Amino acid sequence: MTTKKKSSVKPSKQSSYANAGVDVALGNRVKSGIGAIVRPTHGAEVLGGIGGFGGLFQPNFRKRGIKDAVLVSSVDGVGTKLKIAFATNRHETIGQDLVNHCINDIAVTGARPLFFLDYIAAAKLEPRILRQIITGLSKACKAAGCALIGGETAQMPGLYSEGEYDLAGAITGIVDRKDLLDGSRVKVGDTLVGLPANGLHTNGYSLARKVLFELLDLKLTDRPAGLGTTIGAELLKVHRSYLPEFEKLHAMKGKPLHAAAHITGGGLIDNLPRILPRGCNALINPLSWRVPAIYGIIGKGGHVDPLEMYQVFNMGIGMVLVVPGKQGDEIARSLGGRVIGEIVKGNGVVRFDPEPGCQ
Amino acid sequence: MTTKKKSSVKPSKQSSYANAGVDVALGNRVKSGIGAIVRPTHGAEVLGGIGGFGGLFQPNFRKRGIKDAVLVSSVDGVGTKLKIAFATNRHETIGQDLVNHCINDIAVTGARPLFFLDYIAAAKLEPRILRQIITGLSKACKAAGCALIGGETAQMPGLYSEGEYDLAGAITGIVDRKDLLDGSRVKVGDTLVGLPANGLHTNGYSLARKVLFELLDLKLTDRPAGLGTTIGAELLKVHRSYLPEFEKLHAMKGKPLHAAAHITGGGLIDNLPRILPRGCNALINPLSWRVPAIYGIIGKGGHVDPLEMYQVFNMGIGMVLVVPGKQGDEIARSLGGRVIGEIVKGNGVVRFDPEPGCQ
Repeated sequence: MTTKKKSSVKPSKQSSYANAGVDVALGNRVKSGIGAIVRPTHGAEVLGGIGGFGGLFQPNFRKRGIKDAVLVSSVDGVGTKLKIAFATNRHETIGQDLVNHCINDIAVTGARPLFFLDYIAAAKLEPRILRQIITGLSKACKAAGCALIGGETAQMPGLYSEGEYDLAGAITGIVDRKDLLDGSRVKVGDTLVGLPANGLHTNGYSLARKVLFELLDLKLTDRPAGLGTTIGAELLKVHRSYLPEFEKLHAMKGKPLHAAAHITGGGLIDNLPRILPRGCNALINPLSWRVPAIYGIIGKGGHVDPLEMYQVFNMGIGMVLVVPGKQGDEIARSLGGRVIGEIVKGNGVVRFDPEPGCQ
Repeated sequence: MTTKKKSSVKPSKQSSYANAGVDVALGNRVKSGIGAIVRPTHGAEVLGGIGGFGGLFQPNFRKRGIKDAVLVSSVDGVGTKLKIAFATNRHETIGQDLVNHCINDIAVTGARPLFFLDYIAAAKLEPRILRQIITGLSKACKAAGCALIGGETAQMPGLYSEGEYDLAGAITGIVDRKDLLDGSRVKVGDTLVGLPANGLHTNGYSLARKVLFELLDLKLTDRPAGLGTTIGAELLKVHRSYLPEFEKLHAMKGKPLHAAAHITGGGLIDNLPRILPRGCNALINPLSWRVPAIYGIIGKGGHVDPLEMYQVFNMGIGMVLVVPGKQGDEIARSLGGRVIGEIVKGNGVVRFDPEPGCQ
């Protein structure tokens, strides 16, 4: 979206490209408003303006206290949460979802975000929708001190349905080599602190939609008992950024953070093993936190195997921190989280005690 | 694709997620083969293996001779060239297209690629196709000394049609601040050297497909007079990487490269202005190179306005270099290009002399 195309010669009125479904003039008109939206995310490290071929970023290593710079990069999408954005015609939060998801993915290595680029693909650009998406991206970038330095908006007639789009993005962050979290500090006796998620974040939407809208025949405006809000509002809750909690952890004496796992696709079951060293299991007590009501509705409504629930959804825990056993309670309290388990001897998998039952 | 998900607990046979269209086991099985494909792109600067949350890259600034590191990043897709890959069932070249496109986008700033991440989205993962795409990505990355350090494969039932997918990627490269090409060295009297494109690269496919397959009713296996190959082979030609030519230019005495423009969406008309300083025009002689036969077929077959042809397609010129007037011929010869125009006084636009006619 932000770096491409400036028009000089206007296409003729009977533009062949427009007839083929690509409106260059519309593309350029839409993009012309983008600079003002993304510029507030640009600090002193961003060079050049909008319109270059690549986004330019000169990291100030000294100011950031970085000696041995390690760049950490991740790419992601928002999955079929997009379908909820389409159905509710709300497109700002989806951009925040994407940025926050990416921020968390690199934060677990100890990295702070530097810059972000987005990819938006649609059959046809809708200026209003594009502006909403990019406003959301910018909002989340700004909040995280991350520069939105470029992107691509692709008009692909025939690949996407009318009114639909896909959205992906790539983040690059930085961490000093000595502060890199790679799982090597994790050891038996460490405590697992779970930080609460804000809704489903960006995972499990295909299953959630199938159960809620097909099996249970619910509407976006329905308010099932115990949910406290509408299905639409619940499913659009913004993927939470845990960057503020990571900043607090980095500022604590003795560097208590041994590792962290972002609970995304694959849930606790698939994500925790990514930070387990050889000879360790993660032992989780699934009764140690209150599983949000939405999962009870989905689990019961879809007769979903309880273990599968923990492999598809975050079940209310969006981030797991591994900290020294003695500091678990204190860190959980100070970050608004809970102790949900511990590191025990094992072979690199997640065990539940007790086994999760139907919610 | 490369960094996500490791399975520990297998989903039950009556998996609800599978019924909702997402096959976690398939996803994991597919991904397990990816490490071997991407690993050859990993040099000493890549830390950690496949399976982390983010890809880790520690640039060796000393070895690269970088004092003031500027990171240059770009994101892109391949547009509806994908439709040709679907129709021909060939998915390896599309990955090369994407990487080379991105390499060129940052090469024009003087940057060399460091690392790449991909995003592949489909209704359902086809292991064979995914492997072909990633093999293509890896091949192009390897050729450019660029590390493929991560990616995301998204299963999005309901958003993509059966057998289709979208493909995007993000590249990050590096350039020393003093070597950054930002257009400021361009001046009146400079020569424009055009480097030949290899086919349409990744732009204009919606128009090309409409004219060739709808208006002219051609088949992928047809061999129109003068084309010298089939329509399918012509449209699948790989987007050329100009990195080897940039390396030659960087090695030349006196740093003759003043600027460069990658001729992508928007053609010569929209891309050259991005490197023109105030008070300058680019004056192009469209008779100075042989426009490839495919554009004659599209232009005549679709009755496309000749100027629009130069705004939709590269017309045979994939990269334009701005070099000192006196060195134009010599540089063009040494890089297999041609002098196609010059920088003149003006107001930041492209002029053609003579005006392009019907090819």
